[in-house]
Amino acid sequence: MRNIKLTIEYDGTRYLGWQRLGNSDKTIQGKIENILTQMTGTVIEIIGSGRTDAGTHARGQIANFKTNNTLGLAEMVEFLNRYLPRDIVVKKAEEVSERFHARYNATGKKYSYHVWNQAIPSAFERHYSFQYPQELDIELMNKACQKLIGTHDFIGFSSLKKTKKSTTRTIEELSIQKEGDMIHFTFVGDGFLYKMVRIIMGTLLEIGSGTMQLEVIDEVFERKVRSDAGMTVPSQGLFLDEVYY
Amino acid sequence: MRNIKLTIEYDGTRYLGWQRLGNSDKTIQGKIENILTQMTGTVIEIIGSGRTDAGTHARGQIANFKTNNTLGLAEMVEFLNRYLPRDIVVKKAEEVSERFHARYNATGKKYSYHVWNQAIPSAFERHYSFQYPQELDIELMNKACQKLIGTHDFIGFSSLKKTKKSTTRTIEELSIQKEGDMIHFTFVGDGFLYKMVRIIMGTLLEIGSGTMQLEVIDEVFERKVRSDAGMTVPSQGLFLDEVYY
Repeated sequence: MRNIKLTIEYDGTRYLGWQRLGNSDKTIQGKIENILTQMTGTVIEIIGSGRTDAGTHARGQIANFKTNNTLGLAEMVEFLNRYLPRDIVVKKAEEVSERFHARYNATGKKYSYHVWNQAIPSAFERHYSFQYPQELDIELMNKACQKLIGTHDFIGFSSLKKTKKSTTRTIEELSIQKEGDMIHFTFVGDGFLYKMVRIIMGTLLEIGSGTMQLEVIDEVFERKVRSDAGMTVPSQGLFLDEVYY
Repeated sequence: MRNIKLTIEYDGTRYLGWQRLGNSDKTIQGKIENILTQMTGTVIEIIGSGRTDAGTHARGQIANFKTNNTLGLAEMVEFLNRYLPRDIVVKKAEEVSERFHARYNATGKKYSYHVWNQAIPSAFERHYSFQYPQELDIELMNKACQKLIGTHDFIGFSSLKKTKKSTTRTIEELSIQKEGDMIHFTFVGDGFLYKMVRIIMGTLLEIGSGTMQLEVIDEVFERKVRSDAGMTVPSQGLFLDEVYY
């Protein structure tokens, strides 16, 4: 059987998220599986590198599926993009080893989060950023990033209940770029717990605007209590940019 | 009476264009007038710097209206942005001289047009660019821009029927910036005829991809025949960036 790896870009605005829910046609996974099932004539299930929440976007989501279909890779991409809605685009299809698994083999991910730091909203960035008008101390947020980078138990920065699985993760990069009224946050790490990027983002914004102290980060690492951390920022500012293997 | 100048940004995707059509609620002008009428309690008519077509966007459309209402400028902006749909944003309100007229007083405009130059579409740029996958010779298009810059009778590059009004315009800047798979075209001039930017764009793309010769520009200036020029590119790649006074 062939194992096909897809690189997928999507505007998550209209969807309930990546993961298929019953027969719902309102998920990215469901949309792609439906077209692949049409294309191959057999029911296809795809494995994503991980879920994304409702409203969250992707520039480089990865998924794989197995098929006996003999269609060429370029034809597959063309077929998919012809029948997919225009807010989901398959950028690339590659033939990979039978053992490749988009979730288990992922060694890291890059996310970005975008903040529209202005009192007046943006007509163009409304679905792709979080409007946060308070003044932000970038230097202070950079100090907070330095505390977050490294290997830590991030359970306090997640929505997970206590679990037997390890909640230790390594953040390799956490950086901030200001570009006009937009502030871009880049996260690179070996893996991220459920809602971890959005809760870290909320904590950074509360530190940057002065409603929380820098030391809150040490406290969350020590006490491991979700409610000590900042708000969960909205999903529409979040992009899954890249998955590493 | 007060004369208020508004700076307006809009995502034109969902609208029939700037200009109010009867009672239609599907125009930018109509939407803003409805909210201003609510705000002031009297019927308000706004004067835009010019129309934009269905699907065309603006980062800096200018309009003015007269009112006896005494609301502060910041409160006006807040009221408008609270009740306007999120794809129309009033960036600024200023009090201007009674004689200011957004259309008659405009001395120039800046437009930009965005081309997605890739065979694979973009999920994010789909409403804000024109996908044109053919290879483009930027150097050759730059030569064409040099021929277009200056004062000419642009009637052959417009959808206008013969008219007694002058169709001579001056293009001060016409430049091209490539940024990854996107190509940005910037137009600055004292005024643009109906569909002039979109027909010049179509001509530039046909020259850049080799389906038209550079000399077509001289021919259109000489013969003044619309059908000698290139296609009219779609409206969704076009932005009204700035109006000069």
